[in-house]
Amino acid sequence: MFKKIMIVMYVSVGVISVAFSQQSSNWQKEIYSVLLQQQDAWNRSDIEGYMRGYWKSDSLLFTSGGNIQRGWKATYDKYKKSYDTKEKMGKLEFSKLEINLLSEESAWIFGNWELKREKENPKGVFTLILRKFKDEWKIIHDHTSSQK
Amino acid sequence: MFKKIMIVMYVSVGVISVAFSQQSSNWQKEIYSVLLQQQDAWNRSDIEGYMRGYWKSDSLLFTSGGNIQRGWKATYDKYKKSYDTKEKMGKLEFSKLEINLLSEESAWIFGNWELKREKENPKGVFTLILRKFKDEWKIIHDHTSSQK
Repeated sequence: MFKKIMIVMYVSVGVISVAFSQQSSNWQKEIYSVLLQQQDAWNRSDIEGYMRGYWKSDSLLFTSGGNIQRGWKATYDKYKKSYDTKEKMGKLEFSKLEINLLSEESAWIFGNWELKREKENPKGVFTLILRKFKDEWKIIHDHTSSQK
Repeated sequence: MFKKIMIVMYVSVGVISVAFSQQSSNWQKEIYSVLLQQQDAWNRSDIEGYMRGYWKSDSLLFTSGGNIQRGWKATYDKYKKSYDTKEKMGKLEFSKLEINLLSEESAWIFGNWELKREKENPKGVFTLILRKFKDEWKIIHDHTSSQK
């Protein structure tokens, strides 16, 4: 029985790999569009829209500057509290995005962020882990750091 | 042809899922042991041993405190330079490790780190992304933050 499973898995991995390389550029575009939508939402002061990039689950894990938020609601509340004015929100720019597929349904991104405000431009890097749920990629983990 | 691939993929995902849940606790132990080995190596001042947890590749991506190291060698050199005395190394403790499998061959970990030194205890959180290469899990990305 064990041998049978191994053979089926071996074959299946081959099939997945083929489908994977044929479609990978589409998947990168899909994932990239999640971040573009976040950036656009942020820049029209739409935190609800920005939050659509995140997994709407109590298991979403967000960390920034040593603080940890667990769950979509806690993350949303923190954003709402920290960015309660247009001036604080500034203009968000993601750059140097590196999108790495881990499997058919999981990926990670490393990138740079910058908030262009009137008097300062806080910036840094972030790591995102995404999963594909049905037809949608969602961020399940966000680890954001500020540059000193 | 497309339909055929879809059917094989559907079956294969089912088979992988079964194997996955049966073996997941073994995999968690394997991944956990990578971090335990790192902690033990660090605490005997063995940076080479500590570095064995990382993917020995130019594509390893390490970021901490806004600095980015690309590649195993750059990461190793930074560790060697930043922790050139036993006092600076302190005693490393990982805690609250959350190991999440993403696929048969990929996983991510969120955890806490602390360096117990004579006069201070710097600490924070980290996100790791791991891939399984042959029979070994290796960290391919490390995003470490300090608590303010």
